[in-house]
Amino acid sequence: MASGPEPATAASGQGVQRGQFRSATLHVVGIAVAAVSLGMLACALLEAVTSRRDTTALVVSALVAGAAGGLLWYFSQPGEIRTRQIFATVAWTWILTTAVGALPFILAGTFAAGGVDFVEQVVNSVFESASGFSASGSTVLADFETPGRGLMMYRQLTHWYGGMGVVVLAVAVLPFLGVGGLELISAEAPGTTSDRLTPRVSETARHLWLVYIGFTACAAVAFFAADGFSSLYDAVAHAFTVAATGGFSVHADSIGHYDSVAVETVAIVCMILGATSFSLHWRAVTTRRLPYYRDSEFRSYLLLLGLAATVIVILVWLDNGLPLGSSIRAAVFTVVSLGTSTGLSNATGPGSPGDYVTWVAGAQLVLLVLMVVGGCAGSTSGGIKVMRMRVLGLSMLRTVRHAQTPRAVIPIRLGRDTVNETVVSRVAGFFLLHFLLVMSGVLVVTALEGDFVSALGAVLSALGNMGPALNEAGPTSNYAVAFSQPARLVLALLMVIGRLEIFPILLTAMGVGVSWYRAAARHGRFSVRMLARRLEAIAESRSTDV
Amino acid sequence: MASGPEPATAASGQGVQRGQFRSATLHVVGIAVAAVSLGMLACALLEAVTSRRDTTALVVSALVAGAAGGLLWYFSQPGEIRTRQIFATVAWTWILTTAVGALPFILAGTFAAGGVDFVEQVVNSVFESASGFSASGSTVLADFETPGRGLMMYRQLTHWYGGMGVVVLAVAVLPFLGVGGLELISAEAPGTTSDRLTPRVSETARHLWLVYIGFTACAAVAFFAADGFSSLYDAVAHAFTVAATGGFSVHADSIGHYDSVAVETVAIVCMILGATSFSLHWRAVTTRRLPYYRDSEFRSYLLLLGLAATVIVILVWLDNGLPLGSSIRAAVFTVVSLGTSTGLSNATGPGSPGDYVTWVAGAQLVLLVLMVVGGCAGSTSGGIKVMRMRVLGLSMLRTVRHAQTPRAVIPIRLGRDTVNETVVSRVAGFFLLHFLLVMSGVLVVTALEGDFVSALGAVLSALGNMGPALNEAGPTSNYAVAFSQPARLVLALLMVIGRLEIFPILLTAMGVGVSWYRAAARHGRFSVRMLARRLEAIAESRSTDV
Repeated sequence: MASGPEPATAASGQGVQRGQFRSATLHVVGIAVAAVSLGMLACALLEAVTSRRDTTALVVSALVAGAAGGLLWYFSQPGEIRTRQIFATVAWTWILTTAVGALPFILAGTFAAGGVDFVEQVVNSVFESASGFSASGSTVLADFETPGRGLMMYRQLTHWYGGMGVVVLAVAVLPFLGVGGLELISAEAPGTTSDRLTPRVSETARHLWLVYIGFTACAAVAFFAADGFSSLYDAVAHAFTVAATGGFSVHADSIGHYDSVAVETVAIVCMILGATSFSLHWRAVTTRRLPYYRDSEFRSYLLLLGLAATVIVILVWLDNGLPLGSSIRAAVFTVVSLGTSTGLSNATGPGSPGDYVTWVAGAQLVLLVLMVVGGCAGSTSGGIKVMRMRVLGLSMLRTVRHAQTPRAVIPIRLGRDTVNETVVSRVAGFFLLHFLLVMSGVLVVTALEGDFVSALGAVLSALGNMGPALNEAGPTSNYAVAFSQPARLVLALLMVIGRLEIFPILLTAMGVGVSWYRAAARHGRFSVRMLARRLEAIAESRSTDV
Repeated sequence: MASGPEPATAASGQGVQRGQFRSATLHVVGIAVAAVSLGMLACALLEAVTSRRDTTALVVSALVAGAAGGLLWYFSQPGEIRTRQIFATVAWTWILTTAVGALPFILAGTFAAGGVDFVEQVVNSVFESASGFSASGSTVLADFETPGRGLMMYRQLTHWYGGMGVVVLAVAVLPFLGVGGLELISAEAPGTTSDRLTPRVSETARHLWLVYIGFTACAAVAFFAADGFSSLYDAVAHAFTVAATGGFSVHADSIGHYDSVAVETVAIVCMILGATSFSLHWRAVTTRRLPYYRDSEFRSYLLLLGLAATVIVILVWLDNGLPLGSSIRAAVFTVVSLGTSTGLSNATGPGSPGDYVTWVAGAQLVLLVLMVVGGCAGSTSGGIKVMRMRVLGLSMLRTVRHAQTPRAVIPIRLGRDTVNETVVSRVAGFFLLHFLLVMSGVLVVTALEGDFVSALGAVLSALGNMGPALNEAGPTSNYAVAFSQPARLVLALLMVIGRLEIFPILLTAMGVGVSWYRAAARHGRFSVRMLARRLEAIAESRSTDV
């Protein structure tokens, strides 16, 4: 049965006899959480053979996650995924994965230093987990020495899971999702469209993960070689970060720890490749040719990074009085790191050339623009994406030309393709939504915090899955110092919203709200029974039935 | 001949025998400059009977402007206006009016205090003139006592000319422009469309100016009464400001000078009416009914101001520890003043309740949003305009609904009308262009200046024709202290660009650039002769022939 064509087996899959809930959402959540538990187990092994400090925390987390994921997976039955469930499935998978992913930090007391209370520890753990899985890289970790190597590697691993996406991972092992599976991948994958590499969706997902694993392995080898073959642990940890364009490092001073041009060069190349469409990588692997330069989005992206680097080199060189060599090294690394939404830093300390918060305001503004733009569609990077920015730019140019010749019909072209007007209108809408979210985010964070530039930087950084931000939240600082507890929760939420490109979380929240409102209207008042029924409905993913 | 139908007489108007240049641009510029010279003359009379200090400066300026304008008008012949000339005509009229309008300040030595050099005086005079004619209200004036009453009234008058627009004024007295005249009005008038109130274009322009004059007179009477009939001079000066939603005041502490709830109430009502479509005022006058509340844009506008005021009252009350009464008074006045892009202040001094730069950052962010939005289309206010923001908001909502139901066709409605998709796409393009201009402006100003928030506030304020900005450029400060000389010139340019809603200046600049480039390519190199030929072409307004 399971070897039949996908859509046909979707409703009559292998799990009919054992499944109790017919819910694709719970099934996908179960697989995702179980996959994370495997990662925790691997890190527990690493911890056991190295520092041993956090072994118990990792083992217990792995067991809890494994049990929860396994039970969900075993007792649910996927069934066919309806369009209205897609966003809810993706949103709930991410929310629950983030929650479960915070467990090791909580159990190990990673954020307990300085006698912090338990609530603060939980908030910080959730923040770190959200920042990890969304591949942002903002951190509240101040003490990089106490946590064991296994736990630090787990922290890097959250990036790696989140970079390609836990839903894609789930789809890769689910052979019976049919068209719904492709929509699931699209809803999670960054960018406007997700190429279907192969006719079978689960095969597409598997290919993406294979390319991702191969890329990570190559990056690890390159880092190992560039660092003089000194530490495989460091190399693997940073390979996870660059493949996911995340930003976490095992060192408090990030890539600045090495102060090595070789390591920085490897990081730059890997970050750019991480921010490139993985469809291109797949094509490079299968055709054994390099398709990159023929891709117009990739060309625009390189042009953007080049322009930004040039402007910043000039500004930093003239205004900050750095030598030209240091300016170029600091500017190129920072432009690539922030332009790929990674967020690694080559600052060797506060005030060093790479500490961009000390740069002139104009240079920081260029960095803000890069944060907003992000990488290419279909990559692991964040932001609005180069493809969308090109559509926006071209529609802007069209407006200028329309002002001159009001009756002309001017199509928008990307490379050789004409962009559908529906796509243009959606991209403009996405941009506006992003803009509104930034404004609301800054409003809330400044209301909690005070400093406008820090807040703007942090909100743009969180939504763009960047990592470090401006002022008090710069590359040599940490978010626990810069932001209050509620502000950190808001930023953690924005990271997940940004990683899923707004719609899944927004629509699910709206769906839950509308569903609550309707239930309240029907029952006349709130009751525990209604609450239970609603939670059931949410779990059954009918919540987006607006 | 001149009484024939408009388009027919356009090419064979009355000036054929005397005109040497067939240029509608020069004709319109001439009329506009001559009109400004009449205002200078009136102010010279006021100066002569009051303080006398700056009489000579005003008389000389009036003579120069009158001679220049009169000669241009006399020796040019309008002819029919082609579409490609429209933007160039509007742009050059504004640039030259601003330049000529700076004369009285230069000649009177208004900015000579403290031994400032001549270049600085000229820059400040041009800044003040640009701020005046664009009805922004940013000022570099520190000493409000030394200049004579006539010169101060001239400063207010620049607002008044610019509020309704010097091109509209020119069209009002030009009977033979035909359809080109309507396009001229549209290109100068703020907002998406300019209603044609009557079949004859020059009549429409005259009606607009009549309503404007009547409104200003009523405002003057109201101010006079509210201030206890103490100073007609003050009343007229502030009537000019509110009618144009400008922001200049004859007092250094603006409306805070009176510390009177009555005066503030009059100002609030007049500012809101100034930021309302003048087509509505015209309908109110002709039908003797109040059409305001039936207008969906006006309703949205009031809702926006109400919401903003509520949020700010709460924030200022809670965070700044002001009493509730002072919070409401300060917040409502400031919200209306900045929400109508006027920029008057009721701060009685630095640190007083109305000094909004001391407010919590969240409240200032709301003010920034109001600066960006501006007033209604077809009013004298600046900003992106409420109508455009509604189209943007609705297209954003549509994107959210499209994410749920990808195949649905959802039209955008404003009130009862369905908005054309071309308009939606242009509005989105305009917004993007505005956004790009803000980014470039902030980049340039921060490169010159340093402080990001001051620069962002000043650029948004200049583009939105607001006046005061944030931080160092707040309501109790002045721009000569806050910004360097080149930054002030950039801001002056942004004010004119913002007043004309980007396209006229942008396209004319592009046209001049392209025309230069082509000429240089044709001649192989730059030469004086080519320069002369290009200047000729620019004057002949074929510069937008891109």
